[in-house]
Amino acid sequence: MKNNTITAPKGFLAAGVACGIKKSGKADLGLLVCPTGAKAAAVFTTNKIVSAAVEISRKHIKSRSISAVVVNSGNANACTGQTGIKNAIRMCNETAKQIEIDPHNVLVASTGIIGEQLPINRITEGISKAAVKLSASASAGLDFAKAIMTTDTKPKQAVRQLEISGTKVAIAGVVKGAGMIAPNMATTLCFITTDAAINKPLLARALKTAIGNSLNKLTVDGHQSTNDTAIILACGLAGNRPITSQCPRYKKFTRALLDLCDDLTRQMALNAEGATRMFKVIAKGAATQADAARVSRAVADYPLFKCAVHGCDPNWGRIICAVGSAGVKLNPSKLSCKLGNITVFKNGKPTKFDRKKASKIMSGSKHTITVELGVGGCSDFCYGCDLSTKYVKINAEYHT
Amino acid sequence: MKNNTITAPKGFLAAGVACGIKKSGKADLGLLVCPTGAKAAAVFTTNKIVSAAVEISRKHIKSRSISAVVVNSGNANACTGQTGIKNAIRMCNETAKQIEIDPHNVLVASTGIIGEQLPINRITEGISKAAVKLSASASAGLDFAKAIMTTDTKPKQAVRQLEISGTKVAIAGVVKGAGMIAPNMATTLCFITTDAAINKPLLARALKTAIGNSLNKLTVDGHQSTNDTAIILACGLAGNRPITSQCPRYKKFTRALLDLCDDLTRQMALNAEGATRMFKVIAKGAATQADAARVSRAVADYPLFKCAVHGCDPNWGRIICAVGSAGVKLNPSKLSCKLGNITVFKNGKPTKFDRKKASKIMSGSKHTITVELGVGGCSDFCYGCDLSTKYVKINAEYHT
Repeated sequence: MKNNTITAPKGFLAAGVACGIKKSGKADLGLLVCPTGAKAAAVFTTNKIVSAAVEISRKHIKSRSISAVVVNSGNANACTGQTGIKNAIRMCNETAKQIEIDPHNVLVASTGIIGEQLPINRITEGISKAAVKLSASASAGLDFAKAIMTTDTKPKQAVRQLEISGTKVAIAGVVKGAGMIAPNMATTLCFITTDAAINKPLLARALKTAIGNSLNKLTVDGHQSTNDTAIILACGLAGNRPITSQCPRYKKFTRALLDLCDDLTRQMALNAEGATRMFKVIAKGAATQADAARVSRAVADYPLFKCAVHGCDPNWGRIICAVGSAGVKLNPSKLSCKLGNITVFKNGKPTKFDRKKASKIMSGSKHTITVELGVGGCSDFCYGCDLSTKYVKINAEYHT
Repeated sequence: MKNNTITAPKGFLAAGVACGIKKSGKADLGLLVCPTGAKAAAVFTTNKIVSAAVEISRKHIKSRSISAVVVNSGNANACTGQTGIKNAIRMCNETAKQIEIDPHNVLVASTGIIGEQLPINRITEGISKAAVKLSASASAGLDFAKAIMTTDTKPKQAVRQLEISGTKVAIAGVVKGAGMIAPNMATTLCFITTDAAINKPLLARALKTAIGNSLNKLTVDGHQSTNDTAIILACGLAGNRPITSQCPRYKKFTRALLDLCDDLTRQMALNAEGATRMFKVIAKGAATQADAARVSRAVADYPLFKCAVHGCDPNWGRIICAVGSAGVKLNPSKLSCKLGNITVFKNGKPTKFDRKKASKIMSGSKHTITVELGVGGCSDFCYGCDLSTKYVKINAEYHT
């Protein structure tokens, strides 16, 4: 079995178990361990309300080395006050005890329902159960991927292999998706492992660049959660000449990391709650990159356009409405729009186009919308997915 | 028959006819006439892309007196270039010809599908047909209300009677819904008539205040259309002492106007596409009013919360997530939230509350969510409605 999980890079062990947080009895506790210790970097939610796990991990990420990440699904441990903080610390402590390290070298992440206390005894039992199962096998990596899922219908993983100065290096990632996803950060939870040797500041820089152009470009429902966390661990066991400057090797590593994150982002979009397809909105000709980002996101977030995508309806009016509504500088007489390679609106006027062909483009699993604002040279993009009746059913019929 | 239409105030005639814009054969052209001429004020969309009708009406509203408003539904006359502008002018010209006034004293509004040229010959025929039917009767007012409908399932009208210094004054309004037309655009049109005597600057100020606290506080899909227009005509025939300063009479008039607009807004929320119920989000304790407005709108726009409202699920976690995500100043340890009169979250912590009772509150046709940010003395609100599978069906299954 080819290993396409987070245990693919050298030096990582993983496990996933069911400890009874989820009523369904499905896996809900994951453990990722790097016995040699790893350089680590992370990106967290910018929501003003953050989970206890985010509070603790923000502190622990400052440690010189990280040896383990413990994650639970089924409960977000958010809005849980001091008890929540204590429970997040207990998760780190129990993990540290099991693998005989310092608790400050453990990161913690939670995802699930907000406002309920963790069943902490079940979780600590789960951690000891997971510690026994730790393995570098592909199936252990898959167990971890399944343990972090919430309304995801399948695990989302990716691996990239690259050569750095003749040395083979691997990067692997796993992500959970579904709802409450918006730019900054669209991650919910993302864990990346690599055996590359790279120093901590450059690892942090590479992660920020990669996430900024992938997970942060996806919107599912326009809001970021209280728990969003992306973590990368680099153990250095590949034995490449360490990356210590922004040299070509750094750039190659960052490109591969971005490619991996983009892959995970697209998997998330396609597996978003109720989604049947995804799309990419590219805004060009903007006065500033911020304007381009705002316009592309306005289109990707617009419920009417998301419904049109669900119905494969080349309803460019909804795109133009969202563009005009975004509050950015544009030239109405130079405004143009393409669906795939079909120009549907040019220089402020509708074109005569083949609606059937446009509808067919939209019926694919992924299509691109390009909007030209006609006022400058800046561009940016955003990923989105369709809005289906299933999304509403999942989120209306689910009861807390 | 009690007149609760825009012909209720003295001095207004109305008509509504079917001229063949809508394939359904339903009424699609409305005419509102004030033979004595009226002081007029208007509020238009802030979308950067505006319909031809908005462009023309923005010019004509500068006239000292307005004698007629001509409105079509079924076609937005937006993104239609110079031909669209010519057609909007022709609508004014034909109306002016029929009632023997100057075209600059006519306002025009359109709502419906974007990007298609108006069937202008049918429309000019419709205008002459409507001119013959003009009447001050309640049924003529109702005909007008029906002629501006798109996906609205019922006409939305309201009347307020008040006394200004012992003189009876009437204000009446009609609105078309926040649901999408032949669903290319969310086009809101609102027409208000009054027989009050009031000068133009104060009429404009009163309208801005009233709309700012009613129609502008409703979000259905978070975007403004290219066509949004609210117009008020004041003919002065009530014979009250003219309102020429911000005196108590002005305040009384503005209060009644706001009350009328609030009524129309709530009718719109309940008649939004697929909506089964509405809600009001009040944000308190904000550092600035803009922050309060932003937070309340963030909650009202959040698809996950809109789904929870549809399912009558007291899922306050989604409210808190939206609040934290709005990017405004708040104190997490003082953050509180109420559903109706039930406190579900207090000083940063969940409360134990009766979920059945909370769910029952949410199952009503209207409920209020109150969020306390704990950092200041400013407050604001936003209206919203639930997100249903019907909304998705209406907007995904419709094909342009």
